Amino acid sequence: MRIVGITRDAGDVEVGALSDDGTEVTVLAALEDFWADPAGHLSGTPGGATVAAAGVEFVPPVLPGARVLCIGLNYLKHVAEGSYAAEGVPPHPTLFARWTASLTVDGAQVPVPADEDGLDWEGEVVAWVGRTLVDATPQEALAAVVGYSTFNDLTSRRAQKLTSQWILGKNGDRSGPLGPLVPAAEVGDLREGLRVRTRVNGETVQDGTTDQMVYTVGDTLSLVSRTLTLRPGDLLATGTPSGVGYSRTPPWLLQPGDVVEVEVDRLGVLTNTVVTNEVRHER
Amino acid sequence: MRIVGITRDAGDVEVGALSDDGTEVTVLAALEDFWADPAGHLSGTPGGATVAAAGVEFVPPVLPGARVLCIGLNYLKHVAEGSYAAEGVPPHPTLFARWTASLTVDGAQVPVPADEDGLDWEGEVVAWVGRTLVDATPQEALAAVVGYSTFNDLTSRRAQKLTSQWILGKNGDRSGPLGPLVPAAEVGDLREGLRVRTRVNGETVQDGTTDQMVYTVGDTLSLVSRTLTLRPGDLLATGTPSGVGYSRTPPWLLQPGDVVEVEVDRLGVLTNTVVTNEVRHER
Repeated sequence: MRIVGITRDAGDVEVGALSDDGTEVTVLAALEDFWADPAGHLSGTPGGATVAAAGVEFVPPVLPGARVLCIGLNYLKHVAEGSYAAEGVPPHPTLFARWTASLTVDGAQVPVPADEDGLDWEGEVVAWVGRTLVDATPQEALAAVVGYSTFNDLTSRRAQKLTSQWILGKNGDRSGPLGPLVPAAEVGDLREGLRVRTRVNGETVQDGTTDQMVYTVGDTLSLVSRTLTLRPGDLLATGTPSGVGYSRTPPWLLQPGDVVEVEVDRLGVLTNTVVTNEVRHER
Repeated sequence: MRIVGITRDAGDVEVGALSDDGTEVTVLAALEDFWADPAGHLSGTPGGATVAAAGVEFVPPVLPGARVLCIGLNYLKHVAEGSYAAEGVPPHPTLFARWTASLTVDGAQVPVPADEDGLDWEGEVVAWVGRTLVDATPQEALAAVVGYSTFNDLTSRRAQKLTSQWILGKNGDRSGPLGPLVPAAEVGDLREGLRVRTRVNGETVQDGTTDQMVYTVGDTLSLVSRTLTLRPGDLLATGTPSGVGYSRTPPWLLQPGDVVEVEVDRLGVLTNTVVTNEVRHER
């Protein structure tokens, strides 16, 4: 099952199940209602209207106030290729923040901001929190995950590296394409090693497996829950494998017209096109 | 005029004007409607119902999806007292992120998370964005600010310093008390030097003026707008003066039972009480 967000006639966001052929969406619930009981909605039979995909707008099925927690250095080979290599593997998950305003969907066009030489790719897996977590154990935290999605943590490297803190370069307009939510029961355990691949104009640039993660989803959500209470709908982006563009010789960054795909076993393919900064001025 | 958020009978958030004596709120608009035209709502005469303050719940007048951008090192003496002192004044504003879920109001009780020795205070001023900003000049960005508020950027220092990235320690439950919005026209220019004071149990621990800021509101919002499009309702926390607790000898952190106040000229006093982590388990 692939869970998506839609709006009909510019109305409120609804959550629905995408048909296998991608042509129809069966509505499950309004966005807030879905996240009030995500496990319940995922285990039931969709009871809402079925609408043509061509007649709706797809949006991330994300609560505006959700936290998008991101792990910065979570695959050993990615740590080794980046600007933090000299410091070795960090002793805790390096967490940075996205705001939900940066998220978008499969097929969206992503602009290169004015001061950037291009955008960098970071294919990864997102885990969705389905229950409230306060001072949770890693086991409790992992059991609270209701689903996973493919994610591309598209990065404005200049903005990211202006100072010690990364968040400006991690929150560009539409820089966080997010695939449909696939229920956790259909995905299994990331420690089994789902393959994560990123392609640029058809050429493979990242190829890792999720068993290479240093910090697991359960451990990381457990740690987070000791400072802030996680809520249903919060997201954890689990970090990217090696092969990003900025650390190559010479650097390779996405340019307007480039097509970038992230493919994850059991989660599907996420495809986006890069456009110029002028697109930011049109909206 | 002091603009606040309220809910009546657990309904949707509304924005209203607090009476001078604080006993009544006159409703201006529903939250989303207010932020669709904040300058218009602030310049008109409040036309909604007037309700007793005692009969409503106060909440931040913040859109759930708003970005809370925070400047980390923006007063020279605070740079000099902290763990980044050896690196000097950063060449750009050091921006980190809060999610709106961490915000709360005057009077709220703020828990010390389980792994912390206490909470640190950071009194500061927040600027509210009132217009969409894309690649804006500093002048355009400053002109788009519709108001200012007192803010306490209460910090979980252990979580903040676990890795290179600060955001975990900056997003504890109810760790961001935010005072009423005061319209920009009543506040004037921060470069005139509003006094910012923080008191712990009545003792002054921070005493600075906003003309000591390294990066102005206009410059910072302009920079941000070159990567991400700012929207009405986004917030910028402008950084704290010197005098925080963790860099003292010995360190001084807020403990359960402590009362912390932030007072800013023209913006008022924000008072909060610190409580134990057990309170996190009650909700």
